Amino acid sequence: MSGIKCIKDSEFVRGNVPMTKEEIRMVSLSKLQADDNSIIFDIGAGTGSVSVNQALNTPKASIFAFERDGEAIDLIEKNIERFGVKNVHIVYGNAPDSFKGVPVPTHAFIGGSGGRLHEIVYELINLNPDIHIVFNGITLENTAAMLDEIREHPEFSGSGIVQLSVSRARKANALHMMQGENPVYIIDMRK
Amino acid sequence: MSGIKCIKDSEFVRGNVPMTKEEIRMVSLSKLQADDNSIIFDIGAGTGSVSVNQALNTPKASIFAFERDGEAIDLIEKNIERFGVKNVHIVYGNAPDSFKGVPVPTHAFIGGSGGRLHEIVYELINLNPDIHIVFNGITLENTAAMLDEIREHPEFSGSGIVQLSVSRARKANALHMMQGENPVYIIDMRK
Amino acid sequence: MSGIKCIKDSEFVRGNVPMTKEEIRMVSLSKLQADDNSIIFDIGAGTGSVSVNQALNTPKASIFAFERDGEAIDLIEKNIERFGVKNVHIVYGNAPDSFKGVPVPTHAFIGGSGGRLHEIVYELINLNPDIHIVFNGITLENTAAMLDEIREHPEFSGSGIVQLSVSRARKANALHMMQGENPVYIIDMRK
Amino acid sequence: MSGIKCIKDSEFVRGNVPMTKEEIRMVSLSKLQADDNSIIFDIGAGTGSVSVNQALNTPKASIFAFERDGEAIDLIEKNIERFGVKNVHIVYGNAPDSFKGVPVPTHAFIGGSGGRLHEIVYELINLNPDIHIVFNGITLENTAAMLDEIREHPEFSGSGIVQLSVSRARKANALHMMQGENPVYIIDMRK
Repeated sequence: MSGIKCIKDSEFVRGNVPMTKEEIRMVSLSKLQADDNSIIFDIGAGTGSVSVNQALNTPKASIFAFERDGEAIDLIEKNIERFGVKNVHIVYGNAPDSFKGVPVPTHAFIGGSGGRLHEIVYELINLNPDIHIVFNGITLENTAAMLDEIREHPEFSGSGIVQLSVSRARKANALHMMQGENPVYIIDMRK
Repeated sequence: MSGIKCIKDSEFVRGNVPMTKEEIRMVSLSKLQADDNSIIFDIGAGTGSVSVNQALNTPKASIFAFERDGEAIDLIEKNIERFGVKNVHIVYGNAPDSFKGVPVPTHAFIGGSGGRLHEIVYELINLNPDIHIVFNGITLENTAAMLDEIREHPEFSGSGIVQLSVSRARKANALHMMQGENPVYIIDMRK
Repeated sequence: MSGIKCIKDSEFVRGNVPMTKEEIRMVSLSKLQADDNSIIFDIGAGTGSVSVNQALNTPKASIFAFERDGEAIDLIEKNIERFGVKNVHIVYGNAPDSFKGVPVPTHAFIGGSGGRLHEIVYELINLNPDIHIVFNGITLENTAAMLDEIREHPEFSGSGIVQLSVSRARKANALHMMQGENPVYIIDMRK
Repeated sequence: MSGIKCIKDSEFVRGNVPMTKEEIRMVSLSKLQADDNSIIFDIGAGTGSVSVNQALNTPKASIFAFERDGEAIDLIEKNIERFGVKNVHIVYGNAPDSFKGVPVPTHAFIGGSGGRLHEIVYELINLNPDIHIVFNGITLENTAAMLDEIREHPEFSGSGIVQLSVSRARKANALHMMQGENPVYIIDMRK
């Protein structure tokens, strides 16, 4: 059955691991433009929300969720099970070292980089010079670092940068109070 | 082929008609959750960007683009042709009067209401008490009017409200200047 | 000594009462344009941050802090003491009933209205048809209600509406993570 | 007469030179915390809106408006005249070269840096190790560059970073449409 599959934040098993919120996640996946033939790296997979939501939209793609934190790995496993997806493969370890032995990616989502963003982008482009990368930046430093990558790779001429700020209504008595969520830079690096 | 289809703003034929921007459009379509069995009303269709982008994701759904402005109708036709979609039907006239004779909707996107939001929502719920509506508000008055609808229909208990503010990088010399776009309220009215 | 006096949020005694944040407060006071001859109502004074910060900028103005919550009254007293201001007078009770016996205002800041916004604005204009009001809206309903006031009083032709979204850097390890605060509508109602 | 003086954007002579908008300007001046004893550098003064608005609040301070663009210099002169301020001195040339011969600053506002931000900050701290700097960043690159300065000068331990996004109502028929303005980073560098 066709149609965009969107998972509500509250449907995921979460724990204390930070999660890419629904609107940020859906805009990021929309920009990633993966399909059933894609091999997708989800780097810094956290709760696995990006991997699992991508899997629902592309059940035949190969999705690799890279994560170095044990608690997060547990959550990814639980979310894979909860949504019954069959095509998300967890890879434990530090990216980009953990890329070894994994098939060459066509697409990569970078939600976390453990301070090694330059190496990760370098290795992704090394593996596939035509890769399509979507990056989420929540710190000024990482966003600036990704901007450096855009500048160093002018051949990725289709790249774009947006910042998304979402505020969400919370009911307080009968009133709707808008609550600000953290703004996120979404950087789309493509040829 | 599965996968989320996302059209870049620059790919549409646009003219002077205001257009729902990519990020707002994709979050709205994600919340709409239509599939190939859906009958979708796009009310105040403008350039047709929402209808056409939905059509790419659900090529077997029936999509009705309601629009009262002649210039906009032209653009919808051009965008239908440009993207080769077969399942968008243009309905000329003022909503909700123009709903007559059209199949009962399962989903509705409201991008414009011509000052008749209450009548439109009333008629949509009248046609299908289980309808799923996604509304885009760019004026304070229309957003407040949709809030009244949410309040008057507590049976739509899955409803939610977010405001999305997007800023987009524009290159000025070698620098990236962030430019603010208009904030949009996305109201999701569902049971 | 001249110069804009701006108090940091962390300098106030706070407790659990919501506080108008520094940037929202300074923009609101800037729009209020009170001076040493002004009689200023601070309605829904909360922690007293607006009253006290105004008092530092206009030490000879008469400032009346209206508040109905006992815990908040305590905080206002503590903040008056902490900053040594002499011209903030606390008025306990429900606005606008509590306006009785207080001098006629030239300016009013509305930070909270206890669901009685229409009566409050009506009474302020009744007391002084040339009053200058600055309103802070954090719920959609109250913002819509203030919009109704603007519409019903077209003689206040200098009125304006802005929404301010502030995000603030928090240090996480050596990185600066931007954290979204709640967006606030600032409505300036003046002739 | 005491009280915060705030100039509306529409009151300035503007031309084609970009101008710091009212809310950004007032938050920046609030954070600058200059008084009548201050010597204030306004670097990249543009239309002079920051200098002139500061001058109204601190009529005895010495304010130096540094600007390298001839068209902008004209505007600063016109705005000085329009608001009748006596304490804004225009310095033509490229900062920081143009700092020579000017009194040592106590405060600096950086609205533009002509690609020489590091030299400007270095020279400001060289002139006065206790200087208080407020920076406005509208490009990602300049904001990242100022972040580097914060990092290199940990002795400025009172520093803070906020991003302000303002949207402003524009009347379209009888409706208020919110229009996004460009988000600005305000970085406050102080000890």
